[in-house]
Amino acid sequence: MAAGDRRMSEVRPAVINPDIAVERTAPSFQVEKLVSLLDGGAERTRIRRTVEHVIIADAVFSQENQYFLTQPEQYELAVKKAVHLRQKMEDLGWTDDGPEMWFAFRILGGNLAFAVHSGVFIPTITELGTDAQIAKWVPLARDYQIIGTYAQTELGHGSYLQGLETTASFDPSNQDFILNSPKPSSIKWWPGDLGSSANHAVVLAQLYTQGKCHGMHAFIVQIRSLLDHSALPGVKIGDIGPKMGLEHVDNGYLMLQNIRIPKDNMLNRYSEITSDGRYIKKGSDRINYIAMVFTRVKIITEEMVTALSKACVIAIRYSVVRRQSKLKPGEMEAKILDYQTQQQKLLPQLATAFAFHFMASSLDTFCNQVKVQIKSKGDASSLPELHALSAGLKALISDACSAGVEACRRACGGHGYSKLSGLPSLYSRVVASCTYEGENTVLQLQTARFLIKCLNKIECGEPLPQSVSYLYEPITHDCSAKEKSDFLKPFLYIETYKHRAHRLIKDAGIKLQSLLQSGVEQHVAWNSTSVQLARAAVAHCHYIVVKNFVETLDGLKFEPEIQQVIKMLCDLYALTGILDNAGDFLHDGYLTGKQLDLMTACQLHLLSLVRKEAVSIADAFDYPDEQLNSAIGTYDGLAYQRLFEWAQKAPTNAKVNPAYEKYLKPRFRLAQSKL
Amino acid sequence: MAAGDRRMSEVRPAVINPDIAVERTAPSFQVEKLVSLLDGGAERTRIRRTVEHVIIADAVFSQENQYFLTQPEQYELAVKKAVHLRQKMEDLGWTDDGPEMWFAFRILGGNLAFAVHSGVFIPTITELGTDAQIAKWVPLARDYQIIGTYAQTELGHGSYLQGLETTASFDPSNQDFILNSPKPSSIKWWPGDLGSSANHAVVLAQLYTQGKCHGMHAFIVQIRSLLDHSALPGVKIGDIGPKMGLEHVDNGYLMLQNIRIPKDNMLNRYSEITSDGRYIKKGSDRINYIAMVFTRVKIITEEMVTALSKACVIAIRYSVVRRQSKLKPGEMEAKILDYQTQQQKLLPQLATAFAFHFMASSLDTFCNQVKVQIKSKGDASSLPELHALSAGLKALISDACSAGVEACRRACGGHGYSKLSGLPSLYSRVVASCTYEGENTVLQLQTARFLIKCLNKIECGEPLPQSVSYLYEPITHDCSAKEKSDFLKPFLYIETYKHRAHRLIKDAGIKLQSLLQSGVEQHVAWNSTSVQLARAAVAHCHYIVVKNFVETLDGLKFEPEIQQVIKMLCDLYALTGILDNAGDFLHDGYLTGKQLDLMTACQLHLLSLVRKEAVSIADAFDYPDEQLNSAIGTYDGLAYQRLFEWAQKAPTNAKVNPAYEKYLKPRFRLAQSKL
Repeated sequence: MAAGDRRMSEVRPAVINPDIAVERTAPSFQVEKLVSLLDGGAERTRIRRTVEHVIIADAVFSQENQYFLTQPEQYELAVKKAVHLRQKMEDLGWTDDGPEMWFAFRILGGNLAFAVHSGVFIPTITELGTDAQIAKWVPLARDYQIIGTYAQTELGHGSYLQGLETTASFDPSNQDFILNSPKPSSIKWWPGDLGSSANHAVVLAQLYTQGKCHGMHAFIVQIRSLLDHSALPGVKIGDIGPKMGLEHVDNGYLMLQNIRIPKDNMLNRYSEITSDGRYIKKGSDRINYIAMVFTRVKIITEEMVTALSKACVIAIRYSVVRRQSKLKPGEMEAKILDYQTQQQKLLPQLATAFAFHFMASSLDTFCNQVKVQIKSKGDASSLPELHALSAGLKALISDACSAGVEACRRACGGHGYSKLSGLPSLYSRVVASCTYEGENTVLQLQTARFLIKCLNKIECGEPLPQSVSYLYEPITHDCSAKEKSDFLKPFLYIETYKHRAHRLIKDAGIKLQSLLQSGVEQHVAWNSTSVQLARAAVAHCHYIVVKNFVETLDGLKFEPEIQQVIKMLCDLYALTGILDNAGDFLHDGYLTGKQLDLMTACQLHLLSLVRKEAVSIADAFDYPDEQLNSAIGTYDGLAYQRLFEWAQKAPTNAKVNPAYEKYLKPRFRLAQSKL
Repeated sequence: MAAGDRRMSEVRPAVINPDIAVERTAPSFQVEKLVSLLDGGAERTRIRRTVEHVIIADAVFSQENQYFLTQPEQYELAVKKAVHLRQKMEDLGWTDDGPEMWFAFRILGGNLAFAVHSGVFIPTITELGTDAQIAKWVPLARDYQIIGTYAQTELGHGSYLQGLETTASFDPSNQDFILNSPKPSSIKWWPGDLGSSANHAVVLAQLYTQGKCHGMHAFIVQIRSLLDHSALPGVKIGDIGPKMGLEHVDNGYLMLQNIRIPKDNMLNRYSEITSDGRYIKKGSDRINYIAMVFTRVKIITEEMVTALSKACVIAIRYSVVRRQSKLKPGEMEAKILDYQTQQQKLLPQLATAFAFHFMASSLDTFCNQVKVQIKSKGDASSLPELHALSAGLKALISDACSAGVEACRRACGGHGYSKLSGLPSLYSRVVASCTYEGENTVLQLQTARFLIKCLNKIECGEPLPQSVSYLYEPITHDCSAKEKSDFLKPFLYIETYKHRAHRLIKDAGIKLQSLLQSGVEQHVAWNSTSVQLARAAVAHCHYIVVKNFVETLDGLKFEPEIQQVIKMLCDLYALTGILDNAGDFLHDGYLTGKQLDLMTACQLHLLSLVRKEAVSIADAFDYPDEQLNSAIGTYDGLAYQRLFEWAQKAPTNAKVNPAYEKYLKPRFRLAQSKL
């Protein structure tokens, strides 16, 4: 049973646009098998659909009219949904880390309050708190009896944690800490759930005791009254105001003016203060690092890849019902997806969504392996590699997904600018991920630092982690491709990406080295090389994604039908990436202009192949219409009818704007006598 | 007197951030001279400042708290401002096409209602109407006694005008036209000023008479009552709903169900219908074409270049007051503009803003020349060149300005995501220009069609217009640059861009030709080449922009100080463009990898030079703080203080969201006894 059939049997549209129906008549593969691959198995597909059924059937979760809500209404609804979901979860026995909650979050499009509360506040206590602290705080938090935020970023400080200015000073005479925001730039700024919801916060602050600073530590601080929700004395708190997107989130500010909190509120698993103020370190808090990495991997899937795949589904469906201009004189206007330029805009994005979906899945597996290594054997040796990979991939994927969503949005022309298409909010949301959880350039340079360390290890003859072992190999020279079909050989394009990464890393390393040797100071040399270092990090991650795509492909050998589709997408992803960065590959003659011409021909041919299956491939993401929430991207392809229907419901149309009475009516009446 | 001094004497900030003050201490040039260059002369600067003074002093025009307004409030305010400006204009004797109105529009950031009314409805009547029609409608329209929209685009039809479905059928028995929207896809969709304001519309419709279709013609249709603003019988009308931006504009829909309008309401200058229904053509309406080109040139300056320059000013100022991480251990945190990666993000955008400013100015001049040629001599021979140039440049500039604004926004990190930075609304607005007034890919292909025609002319030995005359020259081979300094020679990089354009146009032409020769149908061949054709058009326009920048530079030989600054920016623009598209230049060996390495070194050095003057160069755009309306981009550099101050004024902070009482209070009270 194809995904399409399922949709049609469950919520069979009364009418279906024949232009989209015809696209589904003869896919080369069983759509349901692709659905299952994307879900990670048929059993997970079953669970997902059950969850979707529950959520869609519940009016509280409806996304109808969402685009018409004001910001305070969006926040209110997000709280309502979060509380309702908690209830639902308890009623149905869904657990916090079970697949049901994951899918529920997925179908709700993350339009829930308390993401920071559940995703950061609670985990931070779990990771950094003692058993007693966990026992005290976590049950209250899980039951929403307290709502907590995670207050790290400050008005003047983001990625550079050492620069944070909030202080926590131990006062032995009182056995408490005094928390303080010494100046405007140290006001906590941006934490989600803080603006309106939270009554508690994990505050990150410089710990001072016995006149000495011991760096960043985490403290639980009550910030609002549990009785009437007013800010506690000494606390200045509020919403940071309107944003580009994420209107349902109450990002807030928090200024602390010599607030006292009990000694017990310092999260104590890895360090503590004795009653006389001595600071004691109790082992490494590296495990907390893993939590950060997990968060990153989670947002790659939840926020980035989901946004891109939704945008692809919307834009591809719209592009087979939109007709514009004539391809051939005398014929009817053509579907815009039949224009090569439209294929070039959309289909590589579809391939990219698959590439990142598989990458996120592998990264998740790697992350779990490292967690087990640390927890069971205390072996944290893979942590630097994992950190470098997750940082670089987060940057690569958030950049590419943002660009991809925006490309899909623009490819829908004017209607892509309407919020009713669903595309503007996908963009304004996904693009935030380029900045939060580590600004992308900062992350790229962290990955680059790891890569340069690897180069140094080679010089010392030390072994390298698996993902960078290619740096040990001799650098390859020219590419062997002679004809078009050569470019469809995965080993060939993997080699091509590997070569580019290798060269760019080596070149950046050489520049750095030669600057240092010429007497330039370390920090100046690093800064002077940073543009190239960032590019090298991107090239490394790009190679990893291509390699991982091919590995996924190899794993499908018993599913030839699906393997064939995935192969097309993998080829398209790989070749498009080379053509888009042609300079990197031509630079040292690894590829020639002639080879690139062959590759261009090959990529254009791939576009025409993927074109034929595009709607079925998009269907395989199996998003219910309720989840896409797009007037132009529904399964039935009735884009114009739905746009017209939705627009008429806009609140603007319910009453005449006061501007008419105030400014226009007297003038218009003058014209009445003249016309 | 430097622009900075002027600001300081007029609205001297009580405090100025020393981090930004130090940036202004020793510019290599007189800022005021650069201001004057950008304004097009000191006299225009004087007029601009006078207008700004008038606007800023008037409370009605205040943009304070703008980011807090709901969509209906934004529309209401836009109407209020438009009506008030009309009054002001009459009081002060400003004319519709005088510089004062241009500057008033500029400082108001275009947040005015009736842009389509004034910019398209009235000009269309003026261009396509008879003298009697002009005399009847234009005075009423100018006085806002009627508000008109321009209803062309339909729900299912955009760029392809022949595909429009609205019909206007002449009924000789009644001496009137029947206007009709035959199906959902033919509902007029998107026209500005239509959703709430307009009582009239110029409707573009297929003219039918005596059973024959005569193509698109323009008709004046009353759509709302002049007495009570209700939709007239047979008219379905409303707002199309929420959009990504441009919330102050009431984009609307219009469905006509057999509406009858008087015969006189067809705009009759170039065609008419006799009383018995014969269709008569009265000369060419080519002059109307010029109006469209003028609109394009106007939006390049007003909407695109202005957005980019504002974003640059905001991001550059913020980047010298934001400090983040340490460049050197032991020192204080560094200004983020001192990071090479930040320079790479921002400074090429600054150079681009200058490039496009000069380009728009030259295009405007060319446009005026062509208009004179047509009006005075009936010579429309330059129209195809003008059309191709304006189409391709509109596409290039809107794409680049959108990307540039977004790059500036992201370079401001988290604060760039806050609407209070001013950056999100700049983006959501400028990006619309990639779609309206001709979707960019459609425009690129129009330019490409012109270029291919030029190739064919060469074969026939016909002369070519000036901007494409290089296609006659033999194609150049490798670039002669041997050392870094060679890349600072304008003739060298002009040649480089010319070579790329020439090669890409020629290659696309060859592919097209060979497809045709192999028997492929014309339309299939064109579509199969369209990705390459679009790229060729971009390369041509990119060359034109670089050449124009250099010509502007050459014109500054008597202003060595300013010429030096402009030279730096011109070099930076040109080299960045080559490096960003390196593949195009390496492809056939015109440049080598080694040359590109030299060029990279050269570009990085330029970044460090422009870095030193960046704040002063940005100051030269001379935007009053009121116009930038950015908490982080003010002249005084007090970013954090202002963000904190503005955020506290957010309406969200004025009252507790109902979610607290409804969903949270009962739960929080439970915790009270436990903590």
